[in-house]
Amino acid sequence: MVRTLIHNAAILPVTEEKVINRGYIIIEDTRIAEVGEGEYTGALDGFAQVFDGQGKLAMPGLINTHGHAAMTLLRGYGDDLALQVWLEEKMWPIEGKMIAEDVYWGAQLAILEMLKGGTTTFTDMYYFMDGVAESVEQSGMRAVLSRGMVGFSPQKAQETKEGGIEFAKKWHKQADGRITVMLGPHAPYTCPNDFLQEVVAASKELDLPLQIHLSETAFEVDQCKEKNNGLSPIQLMEELGLFERPTIAAHCVHVSDEDIQIMKKYDVKVAHNPDSNLKLGSGVAPALKMLEAGLTLGLGTDGAASNNNLDMFEEMRMAAMLHKGVNQDPIAITAYKALEMATKEGAKALFLEDKLGTLQPGALADIILLDITQPHFYPRHNLIAHVVYSAKSSDVTDVFVNGKQVVANRQVTTLDEATVIRELERCVARLFA
Amino acid sequence: MVRTLIHNAAILPVTEEKVINRGYIIIEDTRIAEVGEGEYTGALDGFAQVFDGQGKLAMPGLINTHGHAAMTLLRGYGDDLALQVWLEEKMWPIEGKMIAEDVYWGAQLAILEMLKGGTTTFTDMYYFMDGVAESVEQSGMRAVLSRGMVGFSPQKAQETKEGGIEFAKKWHKQADGRITVMLGPHAPYTCPNDFLQEVVAASKELDLPLQIHLSETAFEVDQCKEKNNGLSPIQLMEELGLFERPTIAAHCVHVSDEDIQIMKKYDVKVAHNPDSNLKLGSGVAPALKMLEAGLTLGLGTDGAASNNNLDMFEEMRMAAMLHKGVNQDPIAITAYKALEMATKEGAKALFLEDKLGTLQPGALADIILLDITQPHFYPRHNLIAHVVYSAKSSDVTDVFVNGKQVVANRQVTTLDEATVIRELERCVARLFA
Repeated sequence: MVRTLIHNAAILPVTEEKVINRGYIIIEDTRIAEVGEGEYTGALDGFAQVFDGQGKLAMPGLINTHGHAAMTLLRGYGDDLALQVWLEEKMWPIEGKMIAEDVYWGAQLAILEMLKGGTTTFTDMYYFMDGVAESVEQSGMRAVLSRGMVGFSPQKAQETKEGGIEFAKKWHKQADGRITVMLGPHAPYTCPNDFLQEVVAASKELDLPLQIHLSETAFEVDQCKEKNNGLSPIQLMEELGLFERPTIAAHCVHVSDEDIQIMKKYDVKVAHNPDSNLKLGSGVAPALKMLEAGLTLGLGTDGAASNNNLDMFEEMRMAAMLHKGVNQDPIAITAYKALEMATKEGAKALFLEDKLGTLQPGALADIILLDITQPHFYPRHNLIAHVVYSAKSSDVTDVFVNGKQVVANRQVTTLDEATVIRELERCVARLFA
Repeated sequence: MVRTLIHNAAILPVTEEKVINRGYIIIEDTRIAEVGEGEYTGALDGFAQVFDGQGKLAMPGLINTHGHAAMTLLRGYGDDLALQVWLEEKMWPIEGKMIAEDVYWGAQLAILEMLKGGTTTFTDMYYFMDGVAESVEQSGMRAVLSRGMVGFSPQKAQETKEGGIEFAKKWHKQADGRITVMLGPHAPYTCPNDFLQEVVAASKELDLPLQIHLSETAFEVDQCKEKNNGLSPIQLMEELGLFERPTIAAHCVHVSDEDIQIMKKYDVKVAHNPDSNLKLGSGVAPALKMLEAGLTLGLGTDGAASNNNLDMFEEMRMAAMLHKGVNQDPIAITAYKALEMATKEGAKALFLEDKLGTLQPGALADIILLDITQPHFYPRHNLIAHVVYSAKSSDVTDVFVNGKQVVANRQVTTLDEATVIRELERCVARLFA
């Protein structure tokens, strides 16, 4: 058994709204064995590694519940455009030219950015997913992966469904259990109804949850109603039996009160992507209403082409700020609620075991350390508020996933950053030639 | 004459929507003498300092058009509360206990945070302002300062007006011209109408612009209308003659189309504080409408108690994102427009000379360098988009103000960070004892 000690650190356990001003964490192999307050007075010689957390804060790694990692390739390509122009003239033509190595290096860049910024789990729905899974395996990160399924044609439907099932069989619970797989039908507007029902059947057979984009834009909702006797995407999914399977729905920007009731009935999880929804002009999801209805909301960055970074500290801050302003209610989503959404609620939204996203005995040891000696962390009135409202992803110095250190003093130890950037630029040069 | 060269850097001049992928900047004393493209081929021996900008991006320093620097003392004290509770139970009681040294050290912490984050000019309205001006002088930063004037009683009105005038006489154009002073009547709800007219007269006599909070909350607008025959704060200021003086109005969240027309008629400048307005639940200012009407909008952080940091990269990003989402219009405020608001438009909003906020011959040499080798800056499709949507204030490595380096390799060279934090914590311990 490998034992690791982090001591003399401030700790946000996120088990309750509580700050340990000075404490310690003992990791045994992949899990947390103990979280203690005050000085660690035991012997140090039983530990493989001892980290002095003086001037640091330890908290659960952030959990990104929605994204398309390899879209880092398209970061800054096609900003400030209307959604249809952005998709049809910018994204799709380049995505049509991508090959496996593009996705591989794009995912590696995303993993570098996320790990350095304190994200320990990410969610992905894309294609050429073997390269993403291999990158997760190498990097030591945790991920929830899906091969995106689309039914533009019967052939494409068949091919992507089989690809998704094959990917699941190959990768589910691999990489020391750090990879879990969902089936990923892209959206109602890209998947015909009968195809969605086939995917639901496969999800049942394989005992895998589903992830899908739902009600991202007003246009999508209108179009869905027109084609489906007035049913909204949420109502349609209920009718097709999708919600009888464990489901995480990304976006849910344009959901009615009735939609929210349906989601509550089936305990549909939500990946709330405030930055992407703003940047694409999709709108502001009724996150406060969804929370008040008792839904579980995680936070997501979406892809780097519509964000344009993969910074979960920004999403957490945005979630805490945006809904106060839009609802003109300064107590709408509190700092602590936003912190929960970025950690333990995110884990629940991804159907990962319930102790992930917290620091407590038995939890998987996904832990980040922040340097809290920068000016924006003073004075120390409230470390929870500071982490949510004042902190930056660049405050993260060290990252542990599954008990293993993968970022040390702001450098990813498992991937070679210079190589990733060089290979990515090579791929981009070819794609945009 | 002291000559400085920055070469081999990418440059965003912000004179037009243009990126110089590799170029150089020559500084002579306090001003930029030349901005060139390509390699600098002249002799290097005439320069006092030569900076190799390889892997760096040079851009104008960011201009913070609204804030209360010493409110860093209250960062994280009283979050997630209704506005009146926040003000009356949290802010005012502690502000009532503050003494000169609190404001001095609070401002020093703010300056540290702002300089490290690439802000080269800040705006302040507070009290015990001598300590703020001294801190600006020591730090080498640029600032626009006002002693806040309030008329809670005739005595207080007299005292704060005289204090503001005295402060202006002492500090306007001091510190090598880095300090300019405005008169700062706090707001219509804290200044009686006749008092505001006295301040207008003083502003004329001293030839100084005015800064004031206007229409921050719906409550304030309603209250103003009730007391003033249905006039909104903007209409009331017009009637009182305030707008015949150069004026920058902070917030303007609840302004009608008619208000915007009045502001346009007098060319009233706006300090848009998107984060503070969200966090306090005040709402979302109609920034897009104000821009479309031809108003000049700068960006501001407001105080750290309602933000909770002083990060102009976050404000710039928020300005570019928020109005797209709220207006459901992905082309609302472009990345370049947000960049202008954070730089040259901010300078105009503060009535500073028109070349500040750009990199061009004759402009004051307020320049920041960003490390653009982090993963979130790749691939290099669009450096303007990357600076606005992907960058973080922690990417800033070096800062020059008035031609002089004040941040070198992420450390402020003019103030001692450890001393500032120690003294600030001493003040906070006394204030909250």
